[in-house]
Amino acid sequence: MLSPFHSRRIQLKVLVINSGSSSLKYTLFDMADESVLCKGLVERIGLEGTNMTYQAHGQKFEAPLDIKKHSEALKSITAKMTDPEIGVIKSLSEIGAIGHRVLHGGMDFSEPTLVDDAVKASIRKYFVLGPLHNPANLGGIEACEESFPGIPNVAVFDTAFHMSMGPEAYMYAIPRKYYEKYAVRKYGFHGTSHKYVYGKACEYLKLDPAKAKIISCHLGNGSSLCAVKGGKVVDTSMGLTPLAGLVMGTRSGDVDAAVVTFLQQQEGLSAAEIDTMLNKKSGFLGVSERSSDMRDIRQAMADGDPKATEVYKMFLHRLTHYIGAYYLLLGGADAILFTGGIGENSYETRVDIVKNLAPLGCTLDEQANACRGKMCTISTPDSKLTAIVMPTNEELMIAMETVKICAK
Amino acid sequence: MLSPFHSRRIQLKVLVINSGSSSLKYTLFDMADESVLCKGLVERIGLEGTNMTYQAHGQKFEAPLDIKKHSEALKSITAKMTDPEIGVIKSLSEIGAIGHRVLHGGMDFSEPTLVDDAVKASIRKYFVLGPLHNPANLGGIEACEESFPGIPNVAVFDTAFHMSMGPEAYMYAIPRKYYEKYAVRKYGFHGTSHKYVYGKACEYLKLDPAKAKIISCHLGNGSSLCAVKGGKVVDTSMGLTPLAGLVMGTRSGDVDAAVVTFLQQQEGLSAAEIDTMLNKKSGFLGVSERSSDMRDIRQAMADGDPKATEVYKMFLHRLTHYIGAYYLLLGGADAILFTGGIGENSYETRVDIVKNLAPLGCTLDEQANACRGKMCTISTPDSKLTAIVMPTNEELMIAMETVKICAK
Repeated sequence: MLSPFHSRRIQLKVLVINSGSSSLKYTLFDMADESVLCKGLVERIGLEGTNMTYQAHGQKFEAPLDIKKHSEALKSITAKMTDPEIGVIKSLSEIGAIGHRVLHGGMDFSEPTLVDDAVKASIRKYFVLGPLHNPANLGGIEACEESFPGIPNVAVFDTAFHMSMGPEAYMYAIPRKYYEKYAVRKYGFHGTSHKYVYGKACEYLKLDPAKAKIISCHLGNGSSLCAVKGGKVVDTSMGLTPLAGLVMGTRSGDVDAAVVTFLQQQEGLSAAEIDTMLNKKSGFLGVSERSSDMRDIRQAMADGDPKATEVYKMFLHRLTHYIGAYYLLLGGADAILFTGGIGENSYETRVDIVKNLAPLGCTLDEQANACRGKMCTISTPDSKLTAIVMPTNEELMIAMETVKICAK
Repeated sequence: MLSPFHSRRIQLKVLVINSGSSSLKYTLFDMADESVLCKGLVERIGLEGTNMTYQAHGQKFEAPLDIKKHSEALKSITAKMTDPEIGVIKSLSEIGAIGHRVLHGGMDFSEPTLVDDAVKASIRKYFVLGPLHNPANLGGIEACEESFPGIPNVAVFDTAFHMSMGPEAYMYAIPRKYYEKYAVRKYGFHGTSHKYVYGKACEYLKLDPAKAKIISCHLGNGSSLCAVKGGKVVDTSMGLTPLAGLVMGTRSGDVDAAVVTFLQQQEGLSAAEIDTMLNKKSGFLGVSERSSDMRDIRQAMADGDPKATEVYKMFLHRLTHYIGAYYLLLGGADAILFTGGIGENSYETRVDIVKNLAPLGCTLDEQANACRGKMCTISTPDSKLTAIVMPTNEELMIAMETVKICAK
């Protein structure tokens, strides 16, 4: 595997776009030194109260906008970027390429790819598997095609890294016809993040990326685990959709599938209502009946709220389950990585989870664990399994993948 | 925990009944030496072609029956038991108690229990959670009350052993109201089997049952894993229903819950149709498109069938996942047990699974592994984790539990 971290052949400015149904998140990188030139967010596009943020030169600007479409949002962004006073580039021609986060690449994309009509057709084909994200992601691409004619667009899929999984991991044990007819299988998500921290950890630990065995824990509002061996995914905890696996902010993670049919029969809920319940009203929020945010859950625990304590213990139990599972599926592991909002910042959570890893030869270095949001080893030097806090950077990874594709 | 294996205070003959919707399986034990006096099955009760088997004195009798109800089936059975020539008892008064397998005890029963009106009402209350089994199980109890007046009936629940799980394992991360309203949670099944082999393994390995840490793998047409620590269940792989967990004969085991809603939306399937698909048409059968039976799958693999090989690898992958998970949730384990039809008899499967346990310090003793259907250690003497084939005996366990309850 050619490490993207050393890809310096093309030095250019790369715009990274994460386009939601009513939002547009952007970052402009100077890939000469991977620095962020500017970044920001346009929110509530097409709704009342559209708002824009723009950060550059250590300052943050915020202003209401009167626009209706993603292409108009892009025009406002580029106006700021090229503004004589607060801009960061002289002309849009300095932008060499645009990298787009795309949720679902289905079975068509195991790598990032240069966007053309066939790629757009594939993204459209998988609307059915990513009904909220894929249309918005495609909308972002089309807006860029309109606003930046001639500049290449690269699609970087959340699912791509996981396409290296074998059928023993990605097949569901349901009638084969559903795989053949609808491509119902495990896809996995957060692939860009898992791939990034895997590469970074190999660099940091001086491991051969073609041989390393690493458990990556991306713990945030959405959470997933990924077992990676030699740069290939052995298994990951999300599934056909991001619903499966760990206990998350508002998602249930794993449940007996019979829970779905049982509640449909008892409560007369439709498929769409069950989907909303499991994705938006479950997880920390559903059990604590208080908040989807780990910081609120920990505060509530400190205040003696038994429901918050209960869901935290469920979260830990499920996380321990998956770490044990992936350790064995990897045939042992070199390192375990903690990333994402919770993984990088909640040192209390890391105390509790690393306590459970004693049977794998992993002991917490309590002093080292005090770190927040920066790369550091948090296990003792004599630990057989090294635990590392490894901040993720999906935007930078998308920019690096974009450079790699454009350099081909 | 008082071991039921030494409960010899009451020496009596115990009839064990496993009543299905159109079948009645029976075994008569002499608990003085735990020997089987007679056993058999009445099939197709209330259907065309009702048939009865009766085994005693090393002989097997089989005959068609002209009956319509479970109580009539019992009369035919007792006629055989007391028959002057092929019978095993002189009079029904020799039967001291009757033990019944009952699938679902919901949250009401953490132990076997003497049946009274309140118990029957509870079994009825959980019809909704065990819609196929609980009505049939209750029918068997009521038939015995009619046929054996004055003889105590004991209900032994598949779920009871698992009631020792903590909420971190049994709660689903869905809105709390569904737990409060319908008792939607993980129950787990095969509890009688897991409890039996745990006790037997502690005896065999001379482990303190109040401290031992054991992974029990019940692998049959239905399969489940159970992590037991000091006689208490830490986690188990089945859920609200027996659908969750491992890849089974015709059950899917774990799937992203979104698979259910996705297929409902694409194919217009009802909750009941999805239920049937996941329980009856999935697993080995659904992926191999050939058979639900491991023996057929292995034969097909030998014949070069890629679909059979695929589902076998899925089965192994999922099994490895759960073993790793339970090893870590237990904080390390003393032993891993293989039981059930596949666990006891498929030495090839044991070769493949124990190969994956090297990171836990478990190495296969290939010669010892040649055993079938009898208790034996199959790991090398220097293995840190001991692997054991431990034949289960749910009927005997039900009889032992029945003795224990009646001795109280």
